Amino acid sequence: MVTSACVRVAVNGYGVIGKRVADAVALQNDMTLVGVADLVTDYRIRVAVERGFPVYAATEEGRAGMEAVGIPVAGTLDELLSQVDVVADCTPKKIGAENRPRYQAAGVKSIWQGGEKHEVAGYSFVAQANYAGALDRDSARVVSCNTTALTRVLHALHRHGWVKRARATLLRRATDPWESHMSGMINTVVPETTVPSHQGPDARTVMPDLDITTMAGAGPYNLSHIHFAMVETTRPVSLDELRRALEGAPRIAFVRASDGLVALNSVIELMRDLNRPRGDMWEVAVWEDALAVDDREVYVTFQVHNESIVVPETVDCIRALTGVERSAERSIARTDESMGIRKTFLSRSSRLAGSAMAGHA
Amino acid sequence: MVTSACVRVAVNGYGVIGKRVADAVALQNDMTLVGVADLVTDYRIRVAVERGFPVYAATEEGRAGMEAVGIPVAGTLDELLSQVDVVADCTPKKIGAENRPRYQAAGVKSIWQGGEKHEVAGYSFVAQANYAGALDRDSARVVSCNTTALTRVLHALHRHGWVKRARATLLRRATDPWESHMSGMINTVVPETTVPSHQGPDARTVMPDLDITTMAGAGPYNLSHIHFAMVETTRPVSLDELRRALEGAPRIAFVRASDGLVALNSVIELMRDLNRPRGDMWEVAVWEDALAVDDREVYVTFQVHNESIVVPETVDCIRALTGVERSAERSIARTDESMGIRKTFLSRSSRLAGSAMAGHA
Amino acid sequence: MVTSACVRVAVNGYGVIGKRVADAVALQNDMTLVGVADLVTDYRIRVAVERGFPVYAATEEGRAGMEAVGIPVAGTLDELLSQVDVVADCTPKKIGAENRPRYQAAGVKSIWQGGEKHEVAGYSFVAQANYAGALDRDSARVVSCNTTALTRVLHALHRHGWVKRARATLLRRATDPWESHMSGMINTVVPETTVPSHQGPDARTVMPDLDITTMAGAGPYNLSHIHFAMVETTRPVSLDELRRALEGAPRIAFVRASDGLVALNSVIELMRDLNRPRGDMWEVAVWEDALAVDDREVYVTFQVHNESIVVPETVDCIRALTGVERSAERSIARTDESMGIRKTFLSRSSRLAGSAMAGHA
Amino acid sequence: MVTSACVRVAVNGYGVIGKRVADAVALQNDMTLVGVADLVTDYRIRVAVERGFPVYAATEEGRAGMEAVGIPVAGTLDELLSQVDVVADCTPKKIGAENRPRYQAAGVKSIWQGGEKHEVAGYSFVAQANYAGALDRDSARVVSCNTTALTRVLHALHRHGWVKRARATLLRRATDPWESHMSGMINTVVPETTVPSHQGPDARTVMPDLDITTMAGAGPYNLSHIHFAMVETTRPVSLDELRRALEGAPRIAFVRASDGLVALNSVIELMRDLNRPRGDMWEVAVWEDALAVDDREVYVTFQVHNESIVVPETVDCIRALTGVERSAERSIARTDESMGIRKTFLSRSSRLAGSAMAGHA
Repeated sequence: MVTSACVRVAVNGYGVIGKRVADAVALQNDMTLVGVADLVTDYRIRVAVERGFPVYAATEEGRAGMEAVGIPVAGTLDELLSQVDVVADCTPKKIGAENRPRYQAAGVKSIWQGGEKHEVAGYSFVAQANYAGALDRDSARVVSCNTTALTRVLHALHRHGWVKRARATLLRRATDPWESHMSGMINTVVPETTVPSHQGPDARTVMPDLDITTMAGAGPYNLSHIHFAMVETTRPVSLDELRRALEGAPRIAFVRASDGLVALNSVIELMRDLNRPRGDMWEVAVWEDALAVDDREVYVTFQVHNESIVVPETVDCIRALTGVERSAERSIARTDESMGIRKTFLSRSSRLAGSAMAGHA
Repeated sequence: MVTSACVRVAVNGYGVIGKRVADAVALQNDMTLVGVADLVTDYRIRVAVERGFPVYAATEEGRAGMEAVGIPVAGTLDELLSQVDVVADCTPKKIGAENRPRYQAAGVKSIWQGGEKHEVAGYSFVAQANYAGALDRDSARVVSCNTTALTRVLHALHRHGWVKRARATLLRRATDPWESHMSGMINTVVPETTVPSHQGPDARTVMPDLDITTMAGAGPYNLSHIHFAMVETTRPVSLDELRRALEGAPRIAFVRASDGLVALNSVIELMRDLNRPRGDMWEVAVWEDALAVDDREVYVTFQVHNESIVVPETVDCIRALTGVERSAERSIARTDESMGIRKTFLSRSSRLAGSAMAGHA
Repeated sequence: MVTSACVRVAVNGYGVIGKRVADAVALQNDMTLVGVADLVTDYRIRVAVERGFPVYAATEEGRAGMEAVGIPVAGTLDELLSQVDVVADCTPKKIGAENRPRYQAAGVKSIWQGGEKHEVAGYSFVAQANYAGALDRDSARVVSCNTTALTRVLHALHRHGWVKRARATLLRRATDPWESHMSGMINTVVPETTVPSHQGPDARTVMPDLDITTMAGAGPYNLSHIHFAMVETTRPVSLDELRRALEGAPRIAFVRASDGLVALNSVIELMRDLNRPRGDMWEVAVWEDALAVDDREVYVTFQVHNESIVVPETVDCIRALTGVERSAERSIARTDESMGIRKTFLSRSSRLAGSAMAGHA
Repeated sequence: MVTSACVRVAVNGYGVIGKRVADAVALQNDMTLVGVADLVTDYRIRVAVERGFPVYAATEEGRAGMEAVGIPVAGTLDELLSQVDVVADCTPKKIGAENRPRYQAAGVKSIWQGGEKHEVAGYSFVAQANYAGALDRDSARVVSCNTTALTRVLHALHRHGWVKRARATLLRRATDPWESHMSGMINTVVPETTVPSHQGPDARTVMPDLDITTMAGAGPYNLSHIHFAMVETTRPVSLDELRRALEGAPRIAFVRASDGLVALNSVIELMRDLNRPRGDMWEVAVWEDALAVDDREVYVTFQVHNESIVVPETVDCIRALTGVERSAERSIARTDESMGIRKTFLSRSSRLAGSAMAGHA
């Protein structure tokens, strides 16, 4: 375990996930963000400069390129690694695995994102499901946004022994907002032809005894993913049991169509109104008034903000690997408190209102 | 039964469905399109004039408005009804039900579209599933595009006694191309909060003993709907059995990602290349290389061209109500032959190619 | 002039503009936000409750509806008006004009938004162009987002006597993010058939001697408007003169494709990265590396964040009407300081980088 | 000049333009489509097989790949070239220029598309503007969709000596329908930072003495481009003169918002309703009720169907190079007759209606 009371952290890859992980680490009072590393020379890395984060170059060539355009470079990735306890690898898919030897050579603990395979780290992590197993490990993989969301929702039911077989259809956003000018799609949907899609099996890297199958596609939008889950249960589960099970799990928050939150854009508008940084939503947003049950299954519709949902998991994973916090509950509480993660987006009065209006509907 | 060898048909409502039904009826050698009725005065009805279809006004006021802008009006809807054996009501949702007394007063048989409730006609129709039951009836309802597609695919399996429970997630297009400047959506998905969504129960109006549940949403595209179906089976069904069952059913055609048909827009581009009128696709397009099975269910992904899929069903329904053709198989064959409905979109060589390439994939 | 050192302000209409004006007023140390008024009962007004803003009902019926769903209502609009010096009307187009008698009866100064006609207030306002003329007036109209942007950019040139004739084509966003699920468009562009479009003439309500003509259309996006301006000049203007003139004007900031800011989404991503509330951009973003000149005209391409650009103008307008600040420069400086409005989005090093990279391009 | 009464034509590249050129050539009674050449193995080339067009492989490797997936290959591109008088190169940008030596070696005349530079052919062609100059040449370049449209519209005015300076803003579609799943954009607009954009100068390769400047951008749609033109005139031009000048030019047709044709999607819906192959529009669609004039300029808004507008120009170019038809007027007339190109989309009654309704508007 890291003796330092304050874990020294490096973020390698300052993209959609990396820039958010850097902000979140900087908020933790038991962590220090030593620096971020990347190769790009455009506005994205300049934002790190604006933030006052020390910027390191992932390679020597990268350093030359960055300095050529006036970006102050604190050193190379290897120099950064030599100063930290753990590195959060947020580089693009595949690149992460290639960095593994570098991290091992530097003797730092490492965290990869869901773009990498389970085998890269040997442990796939979702805080509420398997924090304990990651304690003092050398490395772990924070699973993808979709797998994280599926795990949060299904673990909330599975821990009660309710899940007989979970079936979900995932509609992914085509691309992220920052790159929507060059890698989007227009007026179409692309179904995945691999059935079941990889997310189902991937959820089993976190919950091995979960019976789950998924189908997936991607559509012309960039705000979030949306999941439609039909969960066959081991016994009839009442609507109230379902609601309480979800309310009782971390990082799941209800939204209500009866509150005007009727679509992905409505929920993101609420995040903007709540002054979330970048309009992020770290919680899985479950439509409370779309919850349904019948005598053998339960139905859950939820929104997954793919840009930010894995950020709190990454912070918890840093604590687990370094062992500075041995309790999942306490780590989750610290992360949620520091980031402003909530169980309820709107005040109780609106809860009542929601129910009342739903009653009228 | 109508004694006339040639059924006299009126189409009331010359919109997305009506204009296509009119074209299809005009292609049948056992039907005569007596005229179309509407109220609009813009390019939509002018196309009927260009086609040489007699145009009738749905109301007296409508007649005045149409004549004021130079549209030649052959008469009123009532005058049209007095000349026909059957009317295909293609007016907007709700309006259709209001027309019922008018059709009864005129003593004409009537067909409604899926926007109306089952009760309006008392019989919900899909040619391959329940043609016989519609013979000589006074009225019937051709079910919606989504219900028609679900029925075609599930009936292909259900008739073998394979369906234990069908679960499907439907992603609907937000609006149709013609109105996409005024009623669309941007960068979002709207989930239906009524679970199960109405399409599941609606399929039971055609197949009462089918166990089905559906969830639905709508997205920012207008080319087609897409369905992801997970069908729990009464016994293990092999991939080959699944393929053959779908191949053996009418108005289902395979497409293959291995042929480059990877998304809704690819399939519609093929329809354009095949010189389909308006780029229509009357068949349900099932992704052959996305078909999958496991020991208890089968998975089917399919595209539903909502603008045109119900058109051949409407033509068959005219034959059933009027009794001019008492065999479902013969009516379907005549309709398909006249419209160019196919079981295979690309020549056999491409079938092999598809398989070969899939093998490589 | 209002004797109180602190202007008491009401915001009527808590929509896209109103909620932002309320936040901005709350930031001013010479203003007090007494309350906001609206009629809605969904998440939008609940956000005001979360903010701790006193919520008033625009009507008695509205009050009943809000209380029925548990929203704490502080009183009615008339009660709110009785406590303030000035009201910022941010209600929907047309409604604003109907509120005029109410404001006059209450004896409060009033500000309308650009959705209302010039005649409603008799004075159309853009801080940098005609602040002085609004001093101590009873009412004024902050012009629309497009007119505000055109005025900022063209006034920067016009004050040097350079503008012979300005021609601009405006591509408006179809709808705002919060309502994009119900009022958007898909895969199309809608041209305005009124030529010149209203924005050109509207700019003359602020700069009467400006020769300007505009054409406009709307497209399937919701992040911002974009303007393409071709400004015929009274004499050849150099690229450096053009750049300096724009740099010297308030609330205009450069962005550079050479910094990776190549499209509307890139610039909004930067606003998110800069932790702007709601990702807002109060400045007109002008593409520095798209600036061009020839021997008789200059070319300017700029992005207009329609959700937020008029907010600082509204704050300045409050000062002008109440006379608490008689200097345009000082009011603009106070507003910009409090809101974080900048002349440069990225640090100087990136400026150089931008130029350097542009040089390489 | 080619002695054969029937010009033997090859189409190299069976993509968006090539497949349409092949169809159009096959319609001409003075041309024979000997074959088409490409490299792809997916549904796109299979459509050529369905059409019964002889398919040639652009390379030996290509031949192997095509035969491997069961596509019947008639031979190689060189074998195809050895049998024809002229080749229409419809290969992707840049590739076309590389094919030049191959065409020269085969001694065939060659036509390139607008993706290639003027220098590749040394002559840039638009039938109505400079047909005569292309007579008996060895090669020519049919200019791009945008340049073709600008030339058609501006030539209609320029030939009257009216154009003092033309200014246009072009909003391009992001990508074509067939590839919209992989190369689109979402919720953004990308402005061109090169000002003036290339289309203005490119129009001067056809009309060297035209004074024109253009700005451009691209948006998230794929149906068509849209142009907003402000044309400064040498003398005041009346609305009626403007209308007649456009009516008098080939391949320009009016559409009217008063007929419900209010946006890009409405016009394409009309093309679908008119049973155009692939919903193509070979004409430039000019909004008649958006035409405007003032004392020094005229304003024209038009839609450009980029997939198909250059197809008739390519057919005419074949006649010009081979000299089988020495009159531009007769070649245009033959092409238009065979393809169904119209000066009026809707019958005269609708013309009146349009005007009448415009009058009411």
